[in-house]
Amino acid sequence: MARDCCATASVVEMGEEDGQEQVPNCISSIIPEWFSEISPMWPGEAHSLKVEKILFQGKSEYQDVLVFQSSAYGNVLVLDGAIQITERDECAYQEMITHLPLCSILNPKKVLVIGGGDGGVLREVSRHSSVEHIDICEIDAMVVEVAKKFFPDVAVGYEDPRVSLHIGDGVAFLKAVPEGTYDVVIVDSSDPIGPAQELFEKPFFESVAKALRPGGVVCTQAESIWLHMHIIEEIVSVCRQIFKGSVNYAWTTVPTYPSGVIGFMLCSTEGPPVDFQRPVNPIDENKDPCKAKGPLKFYNSEIHSAAFCLPTFAKRVINFN
Amino acid sequence: MARDCCATASVVEMGEEDGQEQVPNCISSIIPEWFSEISPMWPGEAHSLKVEKILFQGKSEYQDVLVFQSSAYGNVLVLDGAIQITERDECAYQEMITHLPLCSILNPKKVLVIGGGDGGVLREVSRHSSVEHIDICEIDAMVVEVAKKFFPDVAVGYEDPRVSLHIGDGVAFLKAVPEGTYDVVIVDSSDPIGPAQELFEKPFFESVAKALRPGGVVCTQAESIWLHMHIIEEIVSVCRQIFKGSVNYAWTTVPTYPSGVIGFMLCSTEGPPVDFQRPVNPIDENKDPCKAKGPLKFYNSEIHSAAFCLPTFAKRVINFN
Repeated sequence: MARDCCATASVVEMGEEDGQEQVPNCISSIIPEWFSEISPMWPGEAHSLKVEKILFQGKSEYQDVLVFQSSAYGNVLVLDGAIQITERDECAYQEMITHLPLCSILNPKKVLVIGGGDGGVLREVSRHSSVEHIDICEIDAMVVEVAKKFFPDVAVGYEDPRVSLHIGDGVAFLKAVPEGTYDVVIVDSSDPIGPAQELFEKPFFESVAKALRPGGVVCTQAESIWLHMHIIEEIVSVCRQIFKGSVNYAWTTVPTYPSGVIGFMLCSTEGPPVDFQRPVNPIDENKDPCKAKGPLKFYNSEIHSAAFCLPTFAKRVINFN
Repeated sequence: MARDCCATASVVEMGEEDGQEQVPNCISSIIPEWFSEISPMWPGEAHSLKVEKILFQGKSEYQDVLVFQSSAYGNVLVLDGAIQITERDECAYQEMITHLPLCSILNPKKVLVIGGGDGGVLREVSRHSSVEHIDICEIDAMVVEVAKKFFPDVAVGYEDPRVSLHIGDGVAFLKAVPEGTYDVVIVDSSDPIGPAQELFEKPFFESVAKALRPGGVVCTQAESIWLHMHIIEEIVSVCRQIFKGSVNYAWTTVPTYPSGVIGFMLCSTEGPPVDFQRPVNPIDENKDPCKAKGPLKFYNSEIHSAAFCLPTFAKRVINFN
């Protein structure tokens, strides 16, 4: 996820009077030497990671940025108190949000990523040899900088010559895109409270649909079936109004995200039909041209199809709203 | 899960000198008024739940037993510091560990549950009208008592007249079972450190295989692909030696279990072949005879098949060891 502005924890100045360095209060005020993720988006529960070393903390124009080395999950990127990626489990999120859309259509050529400043989605998009151009629009330059410094295996995605980085607002960027430009749009966004709220609203989805070619596909981060069914229900309803091809929900496991799962909306515009549950463009690991990226760790064609199978409580809401 | 003896947190006497009630140290010592699950089984991370009210704490012959009302997940059962069930997400674990085996064979009649003292697996087994008899062997009577008092929607499973409860050691119970007695054995066990260790070892699996009819099936709790691949690899290896029908691994999401997922080993004995991924005995919700149990919340035939699709990192270890 690119950023999240809803978490209560934030970086504050502490302990300067006795010569200590600044310590983020989400670490010092909860469990000593542990980072705890507490937010009104998931009240009454918190996931905590033991901190080995704080590697970076800063305040960008948009959010608090924290990077620490954890004892169990490698380096961890935290924006406004919410975990965005950890080295140990980022593969699940990045591979699924990317290959679910790209493996569902033949010969994707032009791809747009909104958010995703860490570069992980770029790394995955660049595995597809059919892709000719990848635009990425990330609002916060500091996220790109810390990713390149502390998450080299994620930010490796920027090394692909097909990538064009645009630092700016994704909503504005999309409005300026000529109609029918992209085969795929991936929205690697934060939660729909705060500045990212627009990325979950009807006008934004209308811009996405306009930017896609007929039969083009979008994949957006779409929260947890355990925590946010009311948000998912709304997104599904909006997408059904706008995307006249198909509208689907998929989910996967990410241990360091709240409730341990994250979901995706997968929609296509009117045009050549797309059956997301049956991937037509499988990734052949052996053909991967770039050794720096390493092999796929999480995604395969079977888990692609399985991701669309929902628990009954979620199916009742998503399929019949 | 029935019990877990590996967690470090335990119930201790505190604050008696100033007239306060006893407070479990897993609550008071981590985040005040929150329960934190810290264990050497998942070092460097902890899931925490806000406590509204402590409902019960005691020490049985086998373990520390704690029940509290959480603000986000309803009532929570904790054994030796590890969360076993919460009212909000128990459906995922209970429905999957039960219906994965029972829906994989035609006309299951005799079922044995090892562990599962809370009664949730019984509730699910009893949805199957073909079942004639259900034995359950739980080691700890206190677990049965607190489940009946604080988790009535789970312990409702005990109300089925087909159920026979045996308080005792599951290993000893199984040894005394005549060969070929059961169609299905479900092992709702704790983690393989401490007293439950035997339930993950070769002699136990041999007893299970002996107790099953030809083509009978077993489903055992089998840890998390994110945290315990080395344990899973060992279990798979042992099961391949013993179960000559088929050996499979499935997983599902449970937010309050470490890493947010839990897995299951599904094996069959030599005899009529069992294809676990294609359920032959689907549950028809509308035929449910007992209103007290409510409808299925999580399980359906699609999620049954999907549960066997593994992320690539797990597939490499499980399918080729």
